[in-house]
Formats: sequence, structure tokens, C-alpha cells
Amino acid sequence: MAKGFDELISKVNSCSVKTVSVAVAQDAPVLEAVKAAKERNIANAILVGDEDKIREIAATIDMDLSDYQIIDEKDPEQAALKAVELVHNGTADMYMKGLIDTKSFLKSVLNKEVGLRNNRPLSHVCVFEIEGINKLLFLTDVAFMTYPTLEDKVHIIENTVEICNACGIDMPKVAPLAAVEVVNPKMPVTVEAAELTKMCEEGKIKGCIVDGPLSMDLAICPEAAAHKGAEGRKIVGDADILLFPDIHAGNLVYKTLVHTAKVKNGNIITGTKAPVILTSRSDDFETKVNSIALGSVVAEAMKNK
Amino acid sequence: MAKGFDELISKVNSCSVKTVSVAVAQDAPVLEAVKAAKERNIANAILVGDEDKIREIAATIDMDLSDYQIIDEKDPEQAALKAVELVHNGTADMYMKGLIDTKSFLKSVLNKEVGLRNNRPLSHVCVFEIEGINKLLFLTDVAFMTYPTLEDKVHIIENTVEICNACGIDMPKVAPLAAVEVVNPKMPVTVEAAELTKMCEEGKIKGCIVDGPLSMDLAICPEAAAHKGAEGRKIVGDADILLFPDIHAGNLVYKTLVHTAKVKNGNIITGTKAPVILTSRSDDFETKVNSIALGSVVAEAMKNK
Repeated sequence: MAKGFDELISKVNSCSVKTVSVAVAQDAPVLEAVKAAKERNIANAILVGDEDKIREIAATIDMDLSDYQIIDEKDPEQAALKAVELVHNGTADMYMKGLIDTKSFLKSVLNKEVGLRNNRPLSHVCVFEIEGINKLLFLTDVAFMTYPTLEDKVHIIENTVEICNACGIDMPKVAPLAAVEVVNPKMPVTVEAAELTKMCEEGKIKGCIVDGPLSMDLAICPEAAAHKGAEGRKIVGDADILLFPDIHAGNLVYKTLVHTAKVKNGNIITGTKAPVILTSRSDDFETKVNSIALGSVVAEAMKNK
Repeated sequence: MAKGFDELISKVNSCSVKTVSVAVAQDAPVLEAVKAAKERNIANAILVGDEDKIREIAATIDMDLSDYQIIDEKDPEQAALKAVELVHNGTADMYMKGLIDTKSFLKSVLNKEVGLRNNRPLSHVCVFEIEGINKLLFLTDVAFMTYPTLEDKVHIIENTVEICNACGIDMPKVAPLAAVEVVNPKMPVTVEAAELTKMCEEGKIKGCIVDGPLSMDLAICPEAAAHKGAEGRKIVGDADILLFPDIHAGNLVYKTLVHTAKVKNGNIITGTKAPVILTSRSDDFETKVNSIALGSVVAEAMKNK
């Protein structure tokens, strides 16, 4: 079980090296991350996009392109389709966004002929290593699903359990979060959290332990859980998956962590046939590299399934 | 302008010492905080409650009760009414919860004859000093108003501006937070944030600068604001007041900060005639003392108004 990104990367290094297919690769921060991923033995890459521009950027960041396959395609949407097809047909193991808008990128992911659609809704997982917390935390959904319904939340849990499994966590603990840890009919989020808990007890959600509603302290802080009294609870400050009520709560916590705590993190889109890496402009270099490492771990798990 | 709790406490020390009236004072953690507040010249206290029990606890924490006025009242609801009346009639400057449930405590706050009702809705402010951020942040509402309407949010802003003013911030910057920094009709929170911004521009909300919707990074991180491009924005990582979409988002961020970042914080209820301190069981000792300091600063500002 990986407790941090160093362990996750060791895990990657012990497997066969995976390949990431980059859509519209003429993006300096993405190429820098791809270069570091290769140097650290995390992943190889196939670069699909405008070859002239890719070579121009590579020269400025001291990146030796003889190590990479380049597919020259100047049209961004065509480049995305070519790049995603490489994953679809097994030439590459995961798919990564370059200099293309998110909407067009996702359109290629969902393309019926060459995409990575899996008949499940997509969701976003943000994996955090936080100083003072002795395990990885899987935050979802902080970027993709806006106002998930109960049914959506079941899919989000299933998607995220798959990512946990890939990271060596066999039976993750899922905390449906709220402001309070008791059901309050005036707070629908708490009612849904209790329903998810019941569904898991009845075997309708498998492969994990769900216990909600939970406040953040009871989910991530064993001392707080002990102090408040946690009899009958299945999660006592030791949650793996933090399931947020909606995108606002999730995104605000996510950015609070990035900007105020000591963290390492990586992001991945799941619910697809292969890992999809959609880092944002505001993600720093290490986050991009960590996201590729996360993708490699998930790709390896999918291969062995 | 206080940038942290040390400065806030210096500010308190330079004013006449205030008095806190404690409802149902036979509560060890509350008495410890009251004792520290006196020792640090932050506030005196009048202890209303079961005198025998108060003396018993005082003996175990080495607290010299000859420094305090004690009013013996064994019935909790009666004790609360007597304690709040001391603030109502000006004998004490602020009101603090002891060993009484929150509902009964608030009932005394809202009592028509002896309470502190001000014809405004109550709201909760949590003041944070966060390592790496060079100003105090005022989070609201993380504990009290569950799903504030647009009108409620106007009141919350007005209540919180008063607390900022007391801390020396004359024209606070208010960030109505969301997952994104652009209006999206599918996300009602962003629409309301834009409405609040417009209301402030039109002078319907006074004494502050409102700029929303804002994501957390644009609200608190100047580098992120510069990186993303912040032309035309009035807040560029320098917000004072963080206005949350609802209690879930607010409370989850609040507890994330407490459990993962290096922080000092204090809480206060506002919208009342005098500061009300309602610390929770899970607040640590320093948070309780900081809350009393915050109450003293606000009481001083109210006196001079």
C-alpha cells in the first residue's frame, strides 16, 4: 500500500515502463513533465501534435526528442483523435491532455470509435499526500461532476475504488463528507451519505467500506475521532476516499490544501478504459509528474485485471 | 490592522480590560481558557453556574477564584439567562457558552427581555492566521447558517465586515467563493456571487469590496491570481472575507485548515448587540483563548461606536 508518491513511484519503477500518448503535445509545461517522467523511469511518451512547435519547445527545455515517437498533426482535434486511438488500440497505456481545450479533449476521450468510453460516467480523482497524514487521500469529485446525484455518487465511489485498488488499497474506506456527522433531514447531503452507507452494507456498493455522513475531522484525524467518541463508526480518522457533497465543497478544499498545507498531489480522470490525465494550467510541475505516475500505476492494474 | 493573533492580543492589551460572562461555567476546558485570558490580560470573567462544581474544577486546574465574581445558579437555563443579562445591562462586555447545549445557549442569546438580539440574523465568523498568508482571513459561515439565501449572504457580509473593522481592516475585500471564477448559469452559487458583486458596486452593500465568484486560489494566493491573469478583478489573492456557498463547503474547508495547515484561529457569533463566544468541544485551548481575544476586540469597537 503506497503511503506517498515516493512509494507510488517505486511501485511504478518495478513494473514494465508504460507509455503516455499526449494530445497536442506542443505545450511547454506538459513536455517538461513528460521529460521528467521519462528521466525518472515513470513513463515513455508518444507526442502527437505540431512537430515543428514540439521541436521548438524541446530545444528550450533541453529535451532530447530522439527518445520519443512524434506524430505530426497540426489540427488539434485530429491530433487528439490520433493520440487517443493509440491508447484505444493498446499502442499506448494512458492518455494526456496537451495544448487543447478541455472540451475538445474530453470529446476525444468519449469518441465512440477511437475513444476510451466505458459505459460509466467519468469522474475526477485527486490523490494527496499530506504532511502529518500517514496515508494517501483520494478526493473526489473536485473538478468534474458538479452536483452529483445519489446514483452519480455510487459511480464516483466505484470509479475511485478502482484507483485505490491500483495503489494497493484493497478495501478503501469511503467518507461521504458533510458539515456534520449525524443525519439531519434539513441537510439532504447527510441523508444521501446515510443512504450510501446503507447501500454498501447491503452489498449494493462493493469493494469498499462506506461510513457517512462524516465531518472532515472524523474522516482524517484519528485524535478528533477519539475525542468526539466514535463508537459504532467504521471510519475513525482513517478514511481513504473523501467523497464531497458537490464540486464547490470539493474544489475549495482541494485548493485550500494546495495553498496552505504541505502536500504532494496528482490527478486522474477515471471511469474510462485507460487512465486519462487532465492536468490544469494551475497545477505545478511535480503535480503533473505525479499525475503521470498515478496513470502508470492505474494502467498496470488495468493490464493485470 | 492585525495580521495575526499576537497583534490582535496586543491590541486588546492596549484597551481597558473587558469582562466575559460565562453561562454554566462548570466546564473545565472553558475555565482553563478563561483563566489564561485573565493571566494574559485579555479579559476578566464573571462565572455563572453551579458554584460547587466551579470550585471543584478550579481546584484541579490551579485557578484562583478570588479573582472572579461567581453567581451561583444550578439550573442551566436560568444560569444562561442570568449570564446573558449581565451583558445585556452592560455589567459584562461579551457572552460565552459553558456546559450548556448550543440550542439552550442560543435561546438565551435571542431572549427578548435579557438577550442580545439586534434584529439581524446571527452568523458565525471564524478568524484564521495561516502560515504563509500575511493577513487574517475571516471565514463565514462554517458553523451556523446552513444554506444561506442571497439575502442571508448580504447579512453575513454586513455582520463580518463589522468584525473586520474591529480588527482594524477598514474596507475588507469579500470573496464569494465557488469552484470556478466565472459565472456559470448551471452553478447557482456563481450567479449569486456575481449578484453580490453588483449589489456592492451599486452601493447596496457598504463598507467593503465584493468580487465574485472566486476560486480559492484566486482569493488567497497572489501568485495564482497573477498566473491565471486577473485583469479587471478587485481581489487578486488578497481577500479578507471568504464567503462560502453553504455550511458544507465552509465547514469542510475550516476543518481541513485546522487539521492540515499551520494555523491559529478564533471564532465568534455576530449579528448581536455584544460579541458571543460559542466554542465547540473540538476547539483546542488556544482557539478558545483566541476567541475571547477576538470578543474583546469586537466589544471595544462596539463601545466606541
